[in-house]
Amino acid sequence: MFENSIIALDWLGIVVFTISGALVASRNQMDVIGFILLGTITGIGGGTIRDLLLDAHAVFWIERPQYLAVCIAVSIAVFFTAHLAASRYRLILWLDAIGLALFATGGSEKAIALGEGGLVAATMGVITACFGGIIRDVIGKEDSIIFSHEIYVTAAVLAALSYVILHSLGAPRELSVALSVAAGFGLRAGALAWGWSLPRYRPRPPDI
Amino acid sequence: MFENSIIALDWLGIVVFTISGALVASRNQMDVIGFILLGTITGIGGGTIRDLLLDAHAVFWIERPQYLAVCIAVSIAVFFTAHLAASRYRLILWLDAIGLALFATGGSEKAIALGEGGLVAATMGVITACFGGIIRDVIGKEDSIIFSHEIYVTAAVLAALSYVILHSLGAPRELSVALSVAAGFGLRAGALAWGWSLPRYRPRPPDI
Amino acid sequence: MFENSIIALDWLGIVVFTISGALVASRNQMDVIGFILLGTITGIGGGTIRDLLLDAHAVFWIERPQYLAVCIAVSIAVFFTAHLAASRYRLILWLDAIGLALFATGGSEKAIALGEGGLVAATMGVITACFGGIIRDVIGKEDSIIFSHEIYVTAAVLAALSYVILHSLGAPRELSVALSVAAGFGLRAGALAWGWSLPRYRPRPPDI
Repeated sequence: MFENSIIALDWLGIVVFTISGALVASRNQMDVIGFILLGTITGIGGGTIRDLLLDAHAVFWIERPQYLAVCIAVSIAVFFTAHLAASRYRLILWLDAIGLALFATGGSEKAIALGEGGLVAATMGVITACFGGIIRDVIGKEDSIIFSHEIYVTAAVLAALSYVILHSLGAPRELSVALSVAAGFGLRAGALAWGWSLPRYRPRPPDI
Repeated sequence: MFENSIIALDWLGIVVFTISGALVASRNQMDVIGFILLGTITGIGGGTIRDLLLDAHAVFWIERPQYLAVCIAVSIAVFFTAHLAASRYRLILWLDAIGLALFATGGSEKAIALGEGGLVAATMGVITACFGGIIRDVIGKEDSIIFSHEIYVTAAVLAALSYVILHSLGAPRELSVALSVAAGFGLRAGALAWGWSLPRYRPRPPDI
Repeated sequence: MFENSIIALDWLGIVVFTISGALVASRNQMDVIGFILLGTITGIGGGTIRDLLLDAHAVFWIERPQYLAVCIAVSIAVFFTAHLAASRYRLILWLDAIGLALFATGGSEKAIALGEGGLVAATMGVITACFGGIIRDVIGKEDSIIFSHEIYVTAAVLAALSYVILHSLGAPRELSVALSVAAGFGLRAGALAWGWSLPRYRPRPPDI
């Protein structure tokens, strides 16, 4: 069950992030290979950085190339269906929100399974969740989502910390995962729907 | 012979990519250290990411520092000779095309030599070929070449897939390498000369 | 003593780079989580890339999570105090100069301690010194500091080469470190104060 739980999170998160990356490709009017490139980088980017940092046995998609195959297939499907979305921009935001919560939780879970402590595990969750989107936006020339005025990284932090804390309290894994994903997604969804934000830094004079 | 074949591809690709990076430095009117930085990053960037992902014994230029020395020497030479090029911009594009075909083939070859399957090997070829240029363009503030309207990433995919397929068919290594490089370079050269492109995503209403 | 010397350089460099990253967050009016993200990435980014390339036992902040804790604490402190700086932009430049000299020296030192030769060690110093700032500027949408007209990367090269040469001459470690940091910081400080620069590439016709 344990292995499956990590893998299910990975799969779901990868598919939604791949779609979000492919939709950015559609906004740049790229060809199908561009969809595959941007979709795949977004789908597996965060997890790749996580695995490199953790020095896990092998990067997950090298060990299991079916991840790659799915990213490619999903990206191609988006190439032919992206026009069906009422607003591709909103769709990107909502898919990204799902992926964010899934990857933050799954990234922390994987780090804990590899024996890391709470602080490193939570950091790995945030890295897994945020770097796919960061890379997508840098390469795809979108405004970086981490600069959005609404809560974004904070939702990843919440999901990752929730998992770490629930795990340390001895909560059952499936429950911990479900609650953490719900917390992270709920917070980001609220931010998208109602514009929730944290207080931002306000410069006071002198300000240069 | 086998070792030499990989190494020869690496050397050639590194030199042409280093020149392309140093030429971008010239377009930014950087000093000689800037030439070395941008030339070297472009020359060894793609292969570095490949080696990190494959968890090869060591990154190639750490194991053989003469790669670094050559990148530095080539970058310095470009600093003093870049003005001789009739059009530095066209020269960048053509050197990049050669490097693209060489690295796509060589990256796949190295991955296969390390025991990876076809999909991962082809992906490594594309990563090796494309990431040096992506990093060059992000740091050098050029429009990313992967957004060019003409075929670009597709040529790397063709070279990498060609090598993987020819290898799996049991073709002699040198022949496979030669054909794959020729296919990749030929496709990109055609795109540069005649504007070849794949059909691009066309938004249909609703389009936001 | 040896271990401590490396670690002291790491600590100091990390704190000043973290502050510089958090100050960039303040210029973007991010929330406190944004400060932590950008501060921490800047503080540990260069060393992380160094450790990944060197394939050291583990990335330093995974082995010693207190580094992370300090980055987070420092970033939060900056969130509440950044307005006290007379000019946050100048402060970023000077902190970056200190971090540059410390990381260039410390990065070379670590590479030598791991058995690398002089060229690779100097390169690692430059990478450690420059990549935190490069990532900070890419994510924080600042003009990349490596494009500054004043000497920048050159100061990192000087510090790194100084350490490598002094080490190879058998100079005592503490002396080598002190001289190298002083040389690198002095050169960058002169560039900041008096606009020192190296001759830049000048296009001559034909120039396209």
